Amino acid sequence: MTRIVIIGGGFAGLAAAKKFANDKRFQVTLIDRQNHHLFQPLLYQVATASLSAVEIARSLRSIFDNSRNVSVLLESVTKINPQKKEITTDQTTHSYDYLILATGARTSYFGKDHWAEHTLGLKTLEDSRRIRQKVLNSLELAESSKDPTEQKRLMTVAIVGGGPTGVELAGAFSDLLRRALKTDYRRIDVHKFRIILIQSGERLLKHFDPQHSQYTLERLQELGVEVILGPRVDEVEKGRLHLNDDRWIEAETIIWAAGVAACPLTQTIDCPRDRGGRIEVTPSLSIPGHPHIFAAGDLANLTDHDGQQVPGLAPAATQMGKHVAKVIKEDLRLQKTRYADRFTEFRPAFKYRDKGIMAIIGKNAAVAQTNKFKLQGFFAWLAWLFIHIAFLVGFRNKLAVLLSWAFSYLFDKPAARVFSKTKSPK
Amino acid sequence: MTRIVIIGGGFAGLAAAKKFANDKRFQVTLIDRQNHHLFQPLLYQVATASLSAVEIARSLRSIFDNSRNVSVLLESVTKINPQKKEITTDQTTHSYDYLILATGARTSYFGKDHWAEHTLGLKTLEDSRRIRQKVLNSLELAESSKDPTEQKRLMTVAIVGGGPTGVELAGAFSDLLRRALKTDYRRIDVHKFRIILIQSGERLLKHFDPQHSQYTLERLQELGVEVILGPRVDEVEKGRLHLNDDRWIEAETIIWAAGVAACPLTQTIDCPRDRGGRIEVTPSLSIPGHPHIFAAGDLANLTDHDGQQVPGLAPAATQMGKHVAKVIKEDLRLQKTRYADRFTEFRPAFKYRDKGIMAIIGKNAAVAQTNKFKLQGFFAWLAWLFIHIAFLVGFRNKLAVLLSWAFSYLFDKPAARVFSKTKSPK
Repeated sequence: MTRIVIIGGGFAGLAAAKKFANDKRFQVTLIDRQNHHLFQPLLYQVATASLSAVEIARSLRSIFDNSRNVSVLLESVTKINPQKKEITTDQTTHSYDYLILATGARTSYFGKDHWAEHTLGLKTLEDSRRIRQKVLNSLELAESSKDPTEQKRLMTVAIVGGGPTGVELAGAFSDLLRRALKTDYRRIDVHKFRIILIQSGERLLKHFDPQHSQYTLERLQELGVEVILGPRVDEVEKGRLHLNDDRWIEAETIIWAAGVAACPLTQTIDCPRDRGGRIEVTPSLSIPGHPHIFAAGDLANLTDHDGQQVPGLAPAATQMGKHVAKVIKEDLRLQKTRYADRFTEFRPAFKYRDKGIMAIIGKNAAVAQTNKFKLQGFFAWLAWLFIHIAFLVGFRNKLAVLLSWAFSYLFDKPAARVFSKTKSPK
Repeated sequence: MTRIVIIGGGFAGLAAAKKFANDKRFQVTLIDRQNHHLFQPLLYQVATASLSAVEIARSLRSIFDNSRNVSVLLESVTKINPQKKEITTDQTTHSYDYLILATGARTSYFGKDHWAEHTLGLKTLEDSRRIRQKVLNSLELAESSKDPTEQKRLMTVAIVGGGPTGVELAGAFSDLLRRALKTDYRRIDVHKFRIILIQSGERLLKHFDPQHSQYTLERLQELGVEVILGPRVDEVEKGRLHLNDDRWIEAETIIWAAGVAACPLTQTIDCPRDRGGRIEVTPSLSIPGHPHIFAAGDLANLTDHDGQQVPGLAPAATQMGKHVAKVIKEDLRLQKTRYADRFTEFRPAFKYRDKGIMAIIGKNAAVAQTNKFKLQGFFAWLAWLFIHIAFLVGFRNKLAVLLSWAFSYLFDKPAARVFSKTKSPK
């Protein structure tokens, strides 16, 4: 049996593991630091109290409970040893014939790692819980406070980064703070809530059509979001940040949605990497110099032979995961032929099938585009909802999310406005 | 306007606040350390991964969003000053005309507070999350471990206390570990999971009919739970506990469901208390010597004039909360009569209306009894489900819980098998 070790149970790792599941030629070990696959595109809704954590996550074990050849392990990988073909985790070591790296990306502060202390990222369930707790708790502190300056600061959320995550967070916070919570407080005035979205470039959603950027800007401003375009954040301190047009912005909650970098595990193998730490993979997604190691998902940097840079999106990760499985199966087939020792030459190149990109702004407003058409407004919003429900893993989750959305839409009352106050959040 | 301050948003505090809501004679301040009302009777299902935290909790603000005379504050009360009629919190001070204490109970270790470090209680959402995380993580460690003795310890859950909470936890863990997770693991054998329920008395559910205790014992044993009746826990260390019949039980997870005591805030006022710290209230639920302070719910110790000790149950707490509101309204009415200065004499006595008690053991098995009849088995189970759905706060929550239960029942696959591994849990 061919031993496959997959590190990471995100979109790429999951897609690869599914292709090997119940194929008796393979013995698969899927390793993750968390016990669940997370549907990251909806993570911002957990942060903004629209969905509960459980609704967008599913235990990895439960996904593979009927695939006896797939073992799921909750371990943390510390080292890769390509010479011995083994990896070391916090628990033990595992040998592999093929290794698939799919550990994804984490929040990046462009070298200013100390900013992490004063800001909140959005990559894990724990991150989203922390954001929800922080924002709801700030409002509670504002309601109790008697100092108007302090109240103002407590009632400000600053979001750094005007990509899809920043835009979706800003829109959802506006919904939550100005509509859902409008009758909740007695002392503070909900019209004083400030949501500030800071984008260093000249437009929001820079990967989208400029017309969509303009539409997004206008919708967000209608929702009461203050959008700052142009200046760059050059300092972050506790409860405030500095812009390079020389002003301070006071905000109790600062969310960092400005950059991602590959997980640092990639640094333990010798291979070419880009500035963001992503591995510059071969066209077949293997790692240069290591034909038995592949990288897929946000970890891989590839420009396919149509000259298209593969984006860091869930569909791209899924396609890459599937492609790696296909390459490995092709290798196995070649082993029985006279080309066995030239297997790398026959590996198929990865080709990204662009299904388009989309972002949601708020109730009834979204933007979507493919190579062929552009869509904005209500129908883009509807398309967004359907596509996200369709790709959620698990029928149970689909139904639960649908129910939550229906309630929020009809009653403007997101259910998940609950947090545990154990100690003061950061 | 009469200023009412209510400390605690559990069943008693919520019931009282609802009685004052939208009554313009009153200005109500409801203070809690958490931002949500928690439906504690279902808390064990969050611990055992059947329900998600959000499904059994509801933001206190959202309950009173249409009651302008009710202010909800997330503060922690540190001191009560009956002379000045004010309370001090971590934020500020609040004056009252009437004060209602409804802070409930917390886990009690009968004076051995250091046992708290090695065991998990079940009183808050955070507690239930911690239990879920601990148990699911232990299984992951067992799956990764190569030491059989260590595996055995990791696969053992010990529950101390054979009351309804202990019984419900034991039954639900058996369901989770032996049925729902049966195809999840590759290396460990699910038949080796041990669930040990320790009850120092001679029968489980001592407040129930002996026939029900026997039925419960038999059902739990059928489910594979090891029930230990008789010996008392006399020492707890990390990962093991000692019984006074001189044996050690090794268990990675030790859950303490053996005792509760009143929250320590009651110690800041001068009044008679029982051994568990509960206030020995007057028949009208006021605190002896403090006619403007009431205690309701698990905090109050009362034997009503039928000689019945009021139990620490949700229905009793709700009835007490309503009664306090009634007494205060009666006081106000008397103020306009010539009996104004003799108002305490006219206060109605609280009378507990016993609607019965029930406990669930597992799928299709529960026990229920009232003064008039006893019920066990499938119909008791059905009654349990209906009553718990009916009393859940919020239509949204009812529907979500119903959906979760339907899925678990039909597919044996509880949805909430998800936890965040941030650091090693205790």
